[in-house]
Amino acid sequence: MSLFPSKSRLAHIVFEHDDKSSKTFDVVLLIAILLSVIIVILDSVAELRYNYGHIFYALEWAFTIVFTVEYALRLWLSKRKIGYVLSFYGLVDLLAIVPTYLSLVVLNTQFLVVIRSLRLLRVIRVLKLGRFLKDAEFLSEALRASRAKIQIFIGSMVTIVLIAGTVMYIVEGPESGFTSIPMSMYWAIVTLTTVGFGDITPVTSIGKFIASLIMLMGYGIIAVPTGIVTSEMTQANNRRKLAKARMCHNCDKLTFEIDAAYCKYCGDKFPEKK
Amino acid sequence: MSLFPSKSRLAHIVFEHDDKSSKTFDVVLLIAILLSVIIVILDSVAELRYNYGHIFYALEWAFTIVFTVEYALRLWLSKRKIGYVLSFYGLVDLLAIVPTYLSLVVLNTQFLVVIRSLRLLRVIRVLKLGRFLKDAEFLSEALRASRAKIQIFIGSMVTIVLIAGTVMYIVEGPESGFTSIPMSMYWAIVTLTTVGFGDITPVTSIGKFIASLIMLMGYGIIAVPTGIVTSEMTQANNRRKLAKARMCHNCDKLTFEIDAAYCKYCGDKFPEKK
Amino acid sequence: MSLFPSKSRLAHIVFEHDDKSSKTFDVVLLIAILLSVIIVILDSVAELRYNYGHIFYALEWAFTIVFTVEYALRLWLSKRKIGYVLSFYGLVDLLAIVPTYLSLVVLNTQFLVVIRSLRLLRVIRVLKLGRFLKDAEFLSEALRASRAKIQIFIGSMVTIVLIAGTVMYIVEGPESGFTSIPMSMYWAIVTLTTVGFGDITPVTSIGKFIASLIMLMGYGIIAVPTGIVTSEMTQANNRRKLAKARMCHNCDKLTFEIDAAYCKYCGDKFPEKK
Amino acid sequence: MSLFPSKSRLAHIVFEHDDKSSKTFDVVLLIAILLSVIIVILDSVAELRYNYGHIFYALEWAFTIVFTVEYALRLWLSKRKIGYVLSFYGLVDLLAIVPTYLSLVVLNTQFLVVIRSLRLLRVIRVLKLGRFLKDAEFLSEALRASRAKIQIFIGSMVTIVLIAGTVMYIVEGPESGFTSIPMSMYWAIVTLTTVGFGDITPVTSIGKFIASLIMLMGYGIIAVPTGIVTSEMTQANNRRKLAKARMCHNCDKLTFEIDAAYCKYCGDKFPEKK
Repeated sequence: MSLFPSKSRLAHIVFEHDDKSSKTFDVVLLIAILLSVIIVILDSVAELRYNYGHIFYALEWAFTIVFTVEYALRLWLSKRKIGYVLSFYGLVDLLAIVPTYLSLVVLNTQFLVVIRSLRLLRVIRVLKLGRFLKDAEFLSEALRASRAKIQIFIGSMVTIVLIAGTVMYIVEGPESGFTSIPMSMYWAIVTLTTVGFGDITPVTSIGKFIASLIMLMGYGIIAVPTGIVTSEMTQANNRRKLAKARMCHNCDKLTFEIDAAYCKYCGDKFPEKK
Repeated sequence: MSLFPSKSRLAHIVFEHDDKSSKTFDVVLLIAILLSVIIVILDSVAELRYNYGHIFYALEWAFTIVFTVEYALRLWLSKRKIGYVLSFYGLVDLLAIVPTYLSLVVLNTQFLVVIRSLRLLRVIRVLKLGRFLKDAEFLSEALRASRAKIQIFIGSMVTIVLIAGTVMYIVEGPESGFTSIPMSMYWAIVTLTTVGFGDITPVTSIGKFIASLIMLMGYGIIAVPTGIVTSEMTQANNRRKLAKARMCHNCDKLTFEIDAAYCKYCGDKFPEKK
Repeated sequence: MSLFPSKSRLAHIVFEHDDKSSKTFDVVLLIAILLSVIIVILDSVAELRYNYGHIFYALEWAFTIVFTVEYALRLWLSKRKIGYVLSFYGLVDLLAIVPTYLSLVVLNTQFLVVIRSLRLLRVIRVLKLGRFLKDAEFLSEALRASRAKIQIFIGSMVTIVLIAGTVMYIVEGPESGFTSIPMSMYWAIVTLTTVGFGDITPVTSIGKFIASLIMLMGYGIIAVPTGIVTSEMTQANNRRKLAKARMCHNCDKLTFEIDAAYCKYCGDKFPEKK
Repeated sequence: MSLFPSKSRLAHIVFEHDDKSSKTFDVVLLIAILLSVIIVILDSVAELRYNYGHIFYALEWAFTIVFTVEYALRLWLSKRKIGYVLSFYGLVDLLAIVPTYLSLVVLNTQFLVVIRSLRLLRVIRVLKLGRFLKDAEFLSEALRASRAKIQIFIGSMVTIVLIAGTVMYIVEGPESGFTSIPMSMYWAIVTLTTVGFGDITPVTSIGKFIASLIMLMGYGIIAVPTGIVTSEMTQANNRRKLAKARMCHNCDKLTFEIDAAYCKYCGDKFPEKK
């Protein structure tokens, strides 16, 4: 970052991504975020903390100060200060620095680790730019489009999980590890999602039989979300193609080929595209 | 719910979903169903039953009485009483109240829990309304369309499971846990569906080799149901999308919302659909 | 089956599926096949064999005689006897009766069980008829079409499995259960197919890291066969639609809408469909 | 291979694949590669090495010499020697022979096994030719097209894995096997990919609950890569199919084989493609 730049220049460096110094800022920020996250991860490994705990601690504070400066900078530079503070990114930025300061006053610092790891979300802001945006939009578009279908699917899943869980709880009983309906539902989810930890498994013949049916069901069900998302994506792809469709002003029928010059239904000539 | 409404008013509240009081009725019912199901679940947890068993028992009866009143109400209000009683919803409504009363006479109340958990199915009636219907129809349509294909698929699965199970039973034998063909078929299902509990696993080299082939097969097979459902959905999607598309005669842009009356790009009014 | 029918009548009953008695024959045969297979399965359960072994043995012989009679009948009725004997169905029919007779002379009857279970394949002949045929053809068509792609996929899988297996064998070593490359390859298949028995799992940190990469890879790879089959199926669906396409005799361009009356490229009128 | 052929003839045999002797060369090479890889695999099995170690050792050297001769041959025959040596295939060819020679000087020969197994990559060169090429291109095309989307997906996966891992590490703690965040992330990957080894599983109720959510998430997420690849493939497919379609001017039926010169329905000759 250039030395003592004007406020407007600083704002450009911080908020824009179109010239050299602003790009440098983004890259430096990206690296800082990733490193700070990696430190959180490494610090959780007992032997590493034992050996390098003090280094991690120092680095943790270093990054916190860097992020604090950045936060102050963004606050100072942004026109609508309240707007920034309450925005998604504003809160994520705040969550990135708060835990370290809290760790001075809070004794049980365990849960702070989770918040700390949320720092990774800050990467989004940097990745938001560039060629990813278009495809990210495409994906979220496809997922948003199939939201209702997915909700129905989840609903059916929950019902199946409850029924399956209850049945297995009755059939197998506590001695097989199906100690309660919640436990059985946990097993049902483990099974329906084809994860299959094997920490709880049916032991009775009838239990094994019902489990088999549940598994085959899960095997079939997995096709549904895939089908939903896939067809939505194909749809989204088609939509882009459709944007190039023509409608005949004479017979109101649609023609999809971009290079069509005549309506195929009534032979009417298309006007030049606007 | 308003006090002492007329019978026709009551019928409207109970069966319709279009005004405030009927909507309130639906929401109250929905909450009651979910709570009663949650109680069934919690009651199955030993320590919870030990501590709060009496509360669960009281609530269980409270909800049963509520549902009984509701059932009586529906019966009283419905024109075709027999029709209601024998309808799917009628039976589900009955199943929601019977177990609790039965628990007074029946000693082994275990299997009643399953019936009780079926209460969740009552949620369907409430969810049936609103925007879910359309998409639910869409899903079932896609599944119905590919029913025959799925039957063939299940058939092939069963054959593969039987052959695989028999082979593994011969190859591995009882000492590896493959104590019988049904047991081996259970293993084959666990493996082909990629659940992989690991409660039974091949130990001999040849068994491991055959298991590998079975796994790769299952890995390939999983593509089939997905393919079936997906292509069906894409088909169904295409049919709908086109029925919905409007093109603005003014700006030539496409609008997909079926109920659009004006072009969302230039605000030009659409002609009445022909 | 009617008593003492003429040979031609018998042939019709046995080979055709279009009138009452021939349909009855199919259904009876179907039930016989399924029952005989179920007996093979039940007979493999130790306690059941201990208690009902003699009944299973009697039924086994009963079905074998039934199938022998049927085989003789088919042989007698078929014009090209050699052709039938050497045909797929002829061999399957033979395999259905041979094991029982062999069990008289062969001491180790274990491997005969496998052949016996092959009886299930006979079901195909009966299911071959009716509405399933069309969809079965559709499925096999889609799979045949993507054969080459699937071969490439299997090839890549094998390479990945070998590399992954070798690496894990070096990294983890025998003490973790990765006793040899074949064993590691078995683990790699168990992992890549997302089956995950858990009979062998990495214990070292580096092993766990590599395993994670392998898992993520397998997670991504699973999309490929699905994609292949799905797009082929969509293709097959389109092809049927395409059969209704029109090509302009004037400009040789394709028009897909079945109800198109004019070429959309040059406005030329289509001839009436032949 | 013919005896003492001219250099140009040799070059043709080695580099081309269009006549008998060059095809023979490819096949012999293919078999040699596969055998040499199989030996590497078998040699890793303790009991086999104990019994046949000396044979494996001999064969290993035999194949190494064969490959060395081949490498020398390729080097001698290729016009741009440096270009060959530094090309992908050149390096793979070199890696196929180096380990055996290194094993004479290097004491710890363990890691050489990995390199040795890379020999399998040489198969690509042989398989590169023929009908596979087209479809391989098709697959890679589809994957390349969806590269950006897949990167975003991997990015989201990493974030989810980190958050999920951290949460489980806090919730479950070391006594359940979640000894550190990396360990928890390993568990998260095992779970999200639905592999589910079961070597680490949640034991606390809250842990099981969160695990259930993670599993359902993974179940939904798996739809995304599939959707991406599938819709890309469908796109790629459509592009190709249309380029291939011919319609008979005589019987108006479609023929999809790109190299079709006559209508397969009525035998009418196709006009030269415009």
